[in-house]
Amino acid sequence: MALIVTKFGGTSVADVARIENAADKVLRETKAGHKVVVVVSAMSGMTNQLIGYCEAISNIYDLREYDAVVSSGEQITAGLMALALQKRGVMARSWLGWQIPFRTDNTHGRARIEGIETAELHKRLDEGEVAVVPGFQGVTSRNRISTLGRGGSDTSAVALAAALKADRCDIYTDVNGVYTADPRIVPQARKLNKISYEEMMEMASLGAKVLQTRSVEISMRHGVALQVLSSFDDHIGSDLPGTLVVNEEEIMEQEVVSGIAHSRDEAKITLLRVKDQPGVAAQVFTPMAEAAINVDMIVQNIAADGQTTDMTFTVGKADLARALETLEKAAIECAEIRCDSNVAKVSVVGIGMKSHSGVANKMFSALAAKGINIQVISTSEIKVSVLIQEEYVELAVRALHAAYGLADVA
Amino acid sequence: MALIVTKFGGTSVADVARIENAADKVLRETKAGHKVVVVVSAMSGMTNQLIGYCEAISNIYDLREYDAVVSSGEQITAGLMALALQKRGVMARSWLGWQIPFRTDNTHGRARIEGIETAELHKRLDEGEVAVVPGFQGVTSRNRISTLGRGGSDTSAVALAAALKADRCDIYTDVNGVYTADPRIVPQARKLNKISYEEMMEMASLGAKVLQTRSVEISMRHGVALQVLSSFDDHIGSDLPGTLVVNEEEIMEQEVVSGIAHSRDEAKITLLRVKDQPGVAAQVFTPMAEAAINVDMIVQNIAADGQTTDMTFTVGKADLARALETLEKAAIECAEIRCDSNVAKVSVVGIGMKSHSGVANKMFSALAAKGINIQVISTSEIKVSVLIQEEYVELAVRALHAAYGLADVA
Repeated sequence: MALIVTKFGGTSVADVARIENAADKVLRETKAGHKVVVVVSAMSGMTNQLIGYCEAISNIYDLREYDAVVSSGEQITAGLMALALQKRGVMARSWLGWQIPFRTDNTHGRARIEGIETAELHKRLDEGEVAVVPGFQGVTSRNRISTLGRGGSDTSAVALAAALKADRCDIYTDVNGVYTADPRIVPQARKLNKISYEEMMEMASLGAKVLQTRSVEISMRHGVALQVLSSFDDHIGSDLPGTLVVNEEEIMEQEVVSGIAHSRDEAKITLLRVKDQPGVAAQVFTPMAEAAINVDMIVQNIAADGQTTDMTFTVGKADLARALETLEKAAIECAEIRCDSNVAKVSVVGIGMKSHSGVANKMFSALAAKGINIQVISTSEIKVSVLIQEEYVELAVRALHAAYGLADVA
Repeated sequence: MALIVTKFGGTSVADVARIENAADKVLRETKAGHKVVVVVSAMSGMTNQLIGYCEAISNIYDLREYDAVVSSGEQITAGLMALALQKRGVMARSWLGWQIPFRTDNTHGRARIEGIETAELHKRLDEGEVAVVPGFQGVTSRNRISTLGRGGSDTSAVALAAALKADRCDIYTDVNGVYTADPRIVPQARKLNKISYEEMMEMASLGAKVLQTRSVEISMRHGVALQVLSSFDDHIGSDLPGTLVVNEEEIMEQEVVSGIAHSRDEAKITLLRVKDQPGVAAQVFTPMAEAAINVDMIVQNIAADGQTTDMTFTVGKADLARALETLEKAAIECAEIRCDSNVAKVSVVGIGMKSHSGVANKMFSALAAKGINIQVISTSEIKVSVLIQEEYVELAVRALHAAYGLADVA
């Protein structure tokens, strides 16, 4: 008998039929003797509709009112899920952010969780009741509804699991787990039964959109066993059909490389012949930070002439125009600013890299063998990322998947 | 400088453009120096959509969860209205039922208001802030969202006006006031500048669907000056362009008859030859009351044979089938049960009737002159209602409107 937090994303509760399907899974968990807390997203499309209303009124809106509007999407699903569970004979009750309360700071639109009161929830769970909690929402110290930012329902689920000391947090979504690569690109891609938090975080931030990075971070910090699984097959979470995200130590046979991630959401900016002197990097990146533009890979070559150097970095495609404007305003001394949005990032991720050498070299060789030019390289303890021309991205992912033998491993 | 509660119904906030239009009216009231509390309905169609979701899951739903779902419609409009006001430079803040708090009993789905805390609202109003309150919703002592039943937003507005001791409660709707008769039937129908609470209650309960009966009742009890006006013309409430519902004494020139109301939502049931003895009426109407079927007009003839009598009464069309079932189960001793749903009720309403005779007689003569047969008659101090065949309803309303000279009065 375990305490499980199960979260259903937008496509898993897209309409009444899917809500009923999700309720069936919860019923099976309760029949297996488990205590269940259900976290729900808004029905898919609803959040965008609500944001659309706000934006139709004004582009610069008061985030307190924005939060009151958009949080209602999850409120609706929570009530409907409780009704669907009751219809199945499961005692169920919805608990809105302010009813729990699920406390956050006052940063409306992207609030940080401060604490979750669990006494009443534990009492109800002990009595056999299922608690249905709308994701994405909380309440501030000023008694205002707050939201956690897009994708915040994963974060809600994980934070609840941590607060309740749940045995597992199941994230039901439209894929049945985390794969060694995107199966739409690599048909031989293999579902991973387990992956470490660190790897999952790299995968998530590198473009594998299965889980929100922040939710993985919270899971890791609080040691919440996280499972990614599909709501569109016959399994329930307790069958462990998905991918478990756990501590490194819990993975018996750690592969050197766990997966190949890729992201097309990259744009490259190069400043030609900037002065090679202290403070230049700060001149470039301080205004970027102030404009809240996320800078990813950064490379700076050694000055060939001893005076100037070329500096290259990447930003999200959506931020490119704003980044160029920001650079213009900052009036950096350089010969020219070039940009290229036809680039993609491909990454090899694996916690085993920490203790293995030659991983990066194998990557560069595999890409070279296919004639793929590497534009920028960036590494961390557990990943190697390269920036390449966008049109080569599928070729690169398949080449690397084969090079590391990811399809063959049992 | 007055304190005004302005309520916008579903068609007045049907989409973003109409919310903006409503916000313009509020802006004008604030510019005129008034303090304003705005009560909003859900965007038209939204409540039905949300109820549809609930009913798609189950016909017998938990009203606590139903309330959590359907109350979100008003929550959305409240946030959007606050945003629209802020865009116009008006300080505005939404106040959900639980934030005020707007306290109700635990009768979910049709909760009764128990009390509204106004200290914080008054403070904000004094500071020049406009409070936007979602209609229809409250919060119970168990910290659950409650709803006041269909049309409950009028009730919310009036109760808030009473609690805040507001100078006026403006109900913006899609008609510009209360008419001497339905203008779709009587083109010469005249808008009333003032009408008494008692008359308005009769008109409302007799089928003139401008205001909810319960909201008029609360207004009368607390002496809230109520105005019905249109949100689709250029006026604002302070221009007093609509119909004011006030105390009898405030109406200087009281007409004998104020208007002609009609209702097609009637069905007639006749029990032939029931025993003419004490207790028979109780045998018939106790089970009706237990089944929550509203019985309206009741007539019972004198027993011609000294033994049995015919008993006739009316119920709402939607309740007819259930009423017949209930009678069947009650096994009333009678020769036959007949029913007819092709009937309509036409009523003459006027507070002046209290002190004038001959009003009913004029009604019967006017109907007779058109060859309209009267099936049932029911009277109160300020109204005379008759049941007629449904197909004569327009003819009857026009004949009565002319007979009482309602179009001519200045």
